[in-house]
Amino acid sequence: EVNGDRLWQSLMGLAEIGAYDDERTGLRGVDRLALTDADAAGRRQVIAWMEDAGLAVRIDRMGNIYGRREGTDPTAAPVLTGSHIDSVATAGAFDGCLGVLGGIEVVRTLNERGIRTRRPIEVGIFAEEEGVRFGTDMLGSAVAAGRLPLDYAHALTDRKGLTLGGELTRTGFDGPTDVRLDPPHAYVECHIEQGPVLAESDVPVGVVTGVQGISWQEITIHGRAAHAGTTPTHLRADAGLAAAQIIVHLRELVDSGEYGDLRATVGHLIVYPDLTNIVPARAELTVDLRNPDDAQMTRAEEALAAFLRDLENSRPGLTLTTRRMAKTPYVPFDEGVQKTIAQAADDHGLEHISLLSGAGHDAQEIAALCPTAMIFVRGEYDGISHNPREYSTPEACARGVSVLATTLLRLADQ
Amino acid sequence: EVNGDRLWQSLMGLAEIGAYDDERTGLRGVDRLALTDADAAGRRQVIAWMEDAGLAVRIDRMGNIYGRREGTDPTAAPVLTGSHIDSVATAGAFDGCLGVLGGIEVVRTLNERGIRTRRPIEVGIFAEEEGVRFGTDMLGSAVAAGRLPLDYAHALTDRKGLTLGGELTRTGFDGPTDVRLDPPHAYVECHIEQGPVLAESDVPVGVVTGVQGISWQEITIHGRAAHAGTTPTHLRADAGLAAAQIIVHLRELVDSGEYGDLRATVGHLIVYPDLTNIVPARAELTVDLRNPDDAQMTRAEEALAAFLRDLENSRPGLTLTTRRMAKTPYVPFDEGVQKTIAQAADDHGLEHISLLSGAGHDAQEIAALCPTAMIFVRGEYDGISHNPREYSTPEACARGVSVLATTLLRLADQ
Ligand SMILES: NC(=O)NCCC(=O)O
Ligand SMILES: NC(=O)NCCC(=O)O
Repeated sequence: EVNGDRLWQSLMGLAEIGAYDDERTGLRGVDRLALTDADAAGRRQVIAWMEDAGLAVRIDRMGNIYGRREGTDPTAAPVLTGSHIDSVATAGAFDGCLGVLGGIEVVRTLNERGIRTRRPIEVGIFAEEEGVRFGTDMLGSAVAAGRLPLDYAHALTDRKGLTLGGELTRTGFDGPTDVRLDPPHAYVECHIEQGPVLAESDVPVGVVTGVQGISWQEITIHGRAAHAGTTPTHLRADAGLAAAQIIVHLRELVDSGEYGDLRATVGHLIVYPDLTNIVPARAELTVDLRNPDDAQMTRAEEALAAFLRDLENSRPGLTLTTRRMAKTPYVPFDEGVQKTIAQAADDHGLEHISLLSGAGHDAQEIAALCPTAMIFVRGEYDGISHNPREYSTPEACARGVSVLATTLLRLADQ
Repeated sequence: EVNGDRLWQSLMGLAEIGAYDDERTGLRGVDRLALTDADAAGRRQVIAWMEDAGLAVRIDRMGNIYGRREGTDPTAAPVLTGSHIDSVATAGAFDGCLGVLGGIEVVRTLNERGIRTRRPIEVGIFAEEEGVRFGTDMLGSAVAAGRLPLDYAHALTDRKGLTLGGELTRTGFDGPTDVRLDPPHAYVECHIEQGPVLAESDVPVGVVTGVQGISWQEITIHGRAAHAGTTPTHLRADAGLAAAQIIVHLRELVDSGEYGDLRATVGHLIVYPDLTNIVPARAELTVDLRNPDDAQMTRAEEALAAFLRDLENSRPGLTLTTRRMAKTPYVPFDEGVQKTIAQAADDHGLEHISLLSGAGHDAQEIAALCPTAMIFVRGEYDGISHNPREYSTPEACARGVSVLATTLLRLADQ
């Protein structure tokens, strides 16, 4: 069992970096987009905690950070744990941070008890996991695992046109070590569920079987600016209306039930010139599709593409272009690691269920390198996340990290 | 007949102030939002032209500018002409500017010919006619005519929170003279049509019978930020989806044909936090409705209000609030002034038709003070406006301003 108070203090301390007060709800949220000043401050804080825990810290060319605790066998591949500390703009204190600070808390506990493991244990902090600043999620871990090239990642830009490479340099996190990760022995990530399943089942801990497929694209619509008062409806090419029709259609695809467990979200939407009496000349939106079934995901993407073609053909002057931002298939996790996690939960006397992850996680990238699975911790309020209301109790966090500790110990002595 | 070349030079010269190049179309547009630096530079240029033409310039507390040419009868009320030079962000060279620069060109022509009129002639430049910076259109003329209070106008804010009063001071256009306009003898405004009617009828000049009703409101939707991957569809309160449903519904109201000649536009639309994997917590949009029939306008507004209520009730966690930005009824113009304009067009051998204005104009506010009507000049490309493609030929502009000259002469000798 880890020290739940100490873990909680770390979580609350990190949440002060990039904190903001939400006027409407009175809640305190976290806004620590990847490689902003706030994220850099958070990284410095967590590196300090890593060093206090005796970890040897290295930073790679993608800004991924690893803290290493040596094992007794110098030739053995390490067991890796970790997650991310970058956040969305309306985040809570837990998403990603629980996995990183939980990993550090495991190390502190091992140190206190004088426990040495055969294999090294490493705690990783992956860059731009959220994908909301530079447009591709799980970016740092995807580059570390070799799925995406480093150059691709460095060249990505945020909405101001700043490159990720430039922001790494600016914040001082363009580290010297090679970004390609030597295959660890295993990877285990502890994370809040961010969904309602554990709470609905009234179970504290989940063993994650895999991650559903994610499809992100950006749609740009060009229409024609025109006067709102004088332009007859039949002469309009209204980019904003087209965007609205896409959003409504996506919900219809979901509600039809014909695409399995499809979820669809338009989180980003802008119109130009964005003025009351001008028919929008241009609109830009992102489409985030999720599906546990890759074939159903493909069908949903095709249905959307067909709708976009029809929309373009329905009105002269309207053109639609799409750009792929990110795409990951359904990723199943390793059954052996899942069993080790379930066994650890049993050892702690904790009820657990198996469940699929609705969110993307660094674990799905590292799974390409080594046996991988995840531990989910129950969230309150329907497990709401990406919202300042995101909350897990101190007990729930401590339980999840205790299961992480036991799992890591087992794997590190294999 | 006025000097068409000189008029054209003024139009093209003013269009360079606030000009921008539209990358996609290769067109040169104008972005001179009210009381920005660009608008202030435009104002200084036009004041210089007024003074060159011998006009005595005064500025009122609303930033409205008047240039006066004295008549022979010191007790006679002036004949007023004018329009505005503020623009939308994707404007052409003509909207508003034709009326102001046309008025100055009339004065230049009278000066050249040594013509004196019994009544003074004044050329007005009204502030924030477009309404896209501070949210209420025809603002300067509405305050001059006494429909809206000066304090209300001064307190309006742009999206950065800057007040109109503050921007008047910053740009030096917080003039000393009383904003309430002494009733002129008559008001005539020359403007591009901004619509397709004159081009479709193949007629150079229109006599405007009135302006259709305008209803502007802002809708703010509060939902709940949530994770795009983990949040089941039935647990979402998606503010962006609600906005899209409103936009699609507005087009359905128009297409139903049940609300007369209704036009509906959503020109402004933002979502928050505006990130790919977050269900929008908040959305804000403007609704611009136009209708020549006030009763039909009321019915359309009621239909929208009912839809908003249903939408709010359809999903827990969704709240909708509306804010009135601007509202003007159908305004009929004076038949006597219309006849004078028609007569002037006949004198110039120009075919003309009568038509209703689809856009709002300062004339509809000044109409509360004195007999008023407008001259429309034909626009090319379906009369497209609020778009850099907006275009009227030099000949069309010269013709319209020649009709203005003859009309003003007649009215000024009454
Ligand atoms: N865990 C998490 O919020 N990841 C961000 C990527 C996603 O949108 O699923
Ligand atoms: N003429 C013109 O574009 N006026 C702006 C007000 C409106 O939106 O109709």
